[in-house]
Amino acid sequence: MKTIEPKLLSGFKDMLPGEAMVFEGITEKIKVIYKSFGFVPLETACMERRDVLTGGAEDFNKSIFLARIVKGVEDRNANWQEEDSAMRFDLTVPLARVVAAHRNELPWPFKRYQIGKVWRGESAQAGRFREFYQFDFDTVGANSILADIETIQIMYGVMSGLIESGKFTIRFNTRKILNCLAESVGCGEKSKEMFRIIDKLDKIGIEGVLEELRREPDSEWDENALAMSAENAERIKEFLEIKGETSGVILDKLRDCFGEEENSGQEGIRELAEISAALLSLGIPQRNVRIDLSVARGLDYYTGPVFETTLDEMPELGSVFSGGRFDGLINRFVPGSNIPAVGASVGLDRLIVGMLKLGLIEKKNSLTEVLVTVFDENNRQNSLNVADFLRSRGFKVEIYLGEDCTLRAQFAYAAKKSIPFVVIIGPDEAAKGIIQLKDMNAKKQESLTLEEAVDKLKAVLR
Amino acid sequence: MKTIEPKLLSGFKDMLPGEAMVFEGITEKIKVIYKSFGFVPLETACMERRDVLTGGAEDFNKSIFLARIVKGVEDRNANWQEEDSAMRFDLTVPLARVVAAHRNELPWPFKRYQIGKVWRGESAQAGRFREFYQFDFDTVGANSILADIETIQIMYGVMSGLIESGKFTIRFNTRKILNCLAESVGCGEKSKEMFRIIDKLDKIGIEGVLEELRREPDSEWDENALAMSAENAERIKEFLEIKGETSGVILDKLRDCFGEEENSGQEGIRELAEISAALLSLGIPQRNVRIDLSVARGLDYYTGPVFETTLDEMPELGSVFSGGRFDGLINRFVPGSNIPAVGASVGLDRLIVGMLKLGLIEKKNSLTEVLVTVFDENNRQNSLNVADFLRSRGFKVEIYLGEDCTLRAQFAYAAKKSIPFVVIIGPDEAAKGIIQLKDMNAKKQESLTLEEAVDKLKAVLR
Repeated sequence: MKTIEPKLLSGFKDMLPGEAMVFEGITEKIKVIYKSFGFVPLETACMERRDVLTGGAEDFNKSIFLARIVKGVEDRNANWQEEDSAMRFDLTVPLARVVAAHRNELPWPFKRYQIGKVWRGESAQAGRFREFYQFDFDTVGANSILADIETIQIMYGVMSGLIESGKFTIRFNTRKILNCLAESVGCGEKSKEMFRIIDKLDKIGIEGVLEELRREPDSEWDENALAMSAENAERIKEFLEIKGETSGVILDKLRDCFGEEENSGQEGIRELAEISAALLSLGIPQRNVRIDLSVARGLDYYTGPVFETTLDEMPELGSVFSGGRFDGLINRFVPGSNIPAVGASVGLDRLIVGMLKLGLIEKKNSLTEVLVTVFDENNRQNSLNVADFLRSRGFKVEIYLGEDCTLRAQFAYAAKKSIPFVVIIGPDEAAKGIIQLKDMNAKKQESLTLEEAVDKLKAVLR
Repeated sequence: MKTIEPKLLSGFKDMLPGEAMVFEGITEKIKVIYKSFGFVPLETACMERRDVLTGGAEDFNKSIFLARIVKGVEDRNANWQEEDSAMRFDLTVPLARVVAAHRNELPWPFKRYQIGKVWRGESAQAGRFREFYQFDFDTVGANSILADIETIQIMYGVMSGLIESGKFTIRFNTRKILNCLAESVGCGEKSKEMFRIIDKLDKIGIEGVLEELRREPDSEWDENALAMSAENAERIKEFLEIKGETSGVILDKLRDCFGEEENSGQEGIRELAEISAALLSLGIPQRNVRIDLSVARGLDYYTGPVFETTLDEMPELGSVFSGGRFDGLINRFVPGSNIPAVGASVGLDRLIVGMLKLGLIEKKNSLTEVLVTVFDENNRQNSLNVADFLRSRGFKVEIYLGEDCTLRAQFAYAAKKSIPFVVIIGPDEAAKGIIQLKDMNAKKQESLTLEEAVDKLKAVLR
C-alpha cells in the first residue's frame, strides 16, 4: 500500500483543539442568548436535492458542491447520476424547506436557531474557505416590528457578551428607504444593482461608489450599468452622507431628504424611528447600535430592516453578524405564500479570526485542572481512584498515561499542557490516606487529605 | 419559476426542534464527561481527499459520497474531475490525518473528542441513514492499559449519566484472546472472517454461527468460506458459551480453556483480569460492565480490548457505544509508525431512537419559561422591558409576536408551547409598577412586583 500524504483539500481547514475550544466556548455563549429569547434548535441534512437549493433556476450561478455515491473505484469516471445531491450553501434554504414541509405542525411563529457547516465552491483565497460555519436564528411567520427589534436586541446581547470591551457596532437600515431612494433616482428597475454598489461603500469609498453608479454600459449586452446622471449620483451622495450623533438627528435629516408625501421612504423612516426608540428604552447604547443608511446588504431577498455588525478595530474583516427581514421565505415551495421572516447569521469563523487577532480571546491547549501522577504499575489503582474521586467533585482530571513514570516526566507533561495542579500518590501516601498536591503556578507542594485537597482546589480554581 | 417540492434526499433526515433539543441535551452531557477526563475537542473538514479516506486502496469497497464543485448548470453532465473530494465516512480517518500532520506539535498522548456527521452511500432502509452523527473520543499515543481502563470508565460514566435506570450493559473482550482462539482452530489466516461471523451471534444465534463457520466454499473463487471441522466448531461453541456471574468465574474458565503455555491468549486473559480488577475497584457494577467473549467487533483494525454497549430492553438496536484499541492508527500516512490508539464512538442517532422508544427521554416543544403578553401596539415597550428584565435574571422569556393581541390568543400560544408562566402587563399594571403573573399549570394569577415575580418563578422553576 502506498504512503498517503496527510493533506487537506484546498479551501478546507481543521480546528485543532486550541481553536476548537474557542469555537465551543463562543457557540455555547451564543446558544444561551438565543435560547433565552425562546428560540429552539433545528438540525437539517447537509445534503439537499439540487432543485431545493437552486429553486430549479436554470441560471443559478452560485458555485455549489454536488455529491454522489460511488462504490469502490470502478465507477470513478462514470457520468453524473440523475438524482442530483448537493451540499447546502446556507441555512436559510433548508429552513425554508422545513417550514414548507411542516408548516401545519410547527408552532407559529416558528423561532429556530441552527448551527452548521455550509459549502461553497468558491475559488480558495486567503481567509475564504469552501467549508465554513454559520449560526443563524430566524423568526418565521411574524409580521410584527417587535420581531425586528428583538432580532437587533439579540445581536446586541450576543456581541456585548462576547466583546466585553464593547468595541463593536451593529448598524441597521431598512430596504424600504433604499427602495424609495432607488425610485427617486430612476433605478427602480435596477435597484438590486444599485444596492450591490452601495454595499461596497466601506471597501471602495464614496468616490468609487459614485463612479460605479455613473458607469456607462461597455457593450450592448451590459445590462448592469446604471449610467446614472450627475444630478442623481449627487442625490445618492447626499443620502449616504447623512450622519448624526443620535438616531433622532439622522431621522430628522432623512425626513428633509424624502419630503412630506407618503411613500415607502416615509414607511421606512417610521420603521427606523420605532426600532430606535425601542432599543433606546431597552438601554442599548447608540454607540453600539445605530442607524447607518449605507447598510444595504448585497442579497436581493431582503424586504425590510437589514443589519450588519463590525468589530471597531477590524473593519476590514467585514460584517460578522448580519441579517434582515425577508418576506416570501417559502415562496419557492408554496408560491404566493409570502411568509414573513426576520433573522441574522453569525459568521463564526470570521468572528473567531477577528477576536483572536484582537486578543479578545485566548487559545488554551487543555482544560484539565488536575493531573494525577502514577507511581508505578503496582500502584496505579490508587491513582485511578483519586482521579475518580476528584472528578466526582466536579474537577477536570487527567491520569498520567505515559510510559516514563518518573516524576520529572509527569511534571513536564503537566507543564506542557498548563495543568495548574498535580496530585502525587505513592504507596506511602496511600498508607497514610493522604496525597501530595502541587500547585504548579505557586510552585508549592502540600500533604493533604482528599477533602482538604478539594477545598484547596475549589479556593484556587472556582 | 416552477414550484419545488420541499423534499429531502432519500436516506437523509432532519431533526425538528423536539428531537434537536434531545440531541443537544445528550451531547452536552456526554461532552461534560469527556472533558472531565481531559479530552479536548477537535474539528475536521467534512470533505477529504479521496486517497486520504481510502488509503489509496484500489479495492476500497465502502460506498462513499464523492463531491465536486459545479458552477451553474452548464457543466452538470461533465465528467468527474481529477482532484477527487469525498465525504468522510467516519471520524477516525480524519483523526489519523490530523495526528500524522501535526504529530510534532500535539501534546502526547493526544486525547481528543469529536462530534460530527459522517456519510455513507449505503442503500437506504428502515433506521439506516446515509448521513448520521458520531461522537468519538480517542486516546492516541498511550500503550498503557490505563488508557483502556479509562475508556471503559468513560463509557460507563456516559451511559449511567444518560440511562438513570441503569438498564444498559457494556461488554468487553480482547482481540488477543480471539486471535489465540483463531490460531487454535486453524483460522489464523482468516481470523477477520471468523470474527465477522462471531460478531453476528446476537443476530443469528449459536447455531447460525456454527453453520457459517462450517460452510464449504460454494465455488473455487469463494475465499471467505472457513469450512471448519466439526471438532473445531465445537471448540468455538464451548468458548462462546463461557459465562459467569463475575469476571473471576469467566477468567478461571478461560484459563482452563487456553491451558498453561504462554501465548496471546494468556496475555489477553491478564488484560481482561487487570481491566476487571480496576473497574471493580472503581465501584463500577459488574451488572453494567462485564466480560463477554462473543464481543468481536466486525472491523479488522482492532488489536486489543474491544467494547460494545447495548440497552437491556432493546438488544435489537445493536451497540450504541463501541470501540477498542487499534494500533497503527497513522500507518497509512507514516508507514511502520504503529502509533497506538484506544477509544470509542457513540452512535447518537441510534441511542436517541432507543432512549425515546424506551421513554427514557421526552421531546419538548419549547424551552421557554415565561411568555410576556403584549397589550396593544402602544403598550408594547412595557412588554419588551419586562421580558428583558426577566432574561437578565436568567429566565428564558418570549415576547408574544402574533398579530391577534387578544389575551385569548396569547394564552393559547403559551398553552400550545407548554410555556408554564404568562406575564400580563397593560397600562394599568405599568402605572402601578406591577405585573400579573399567571401560573399556567396551577391556573392561578397574581398581581406582583417584578422582584416578587422573580422570587415566585425561581421557587417554581429552579
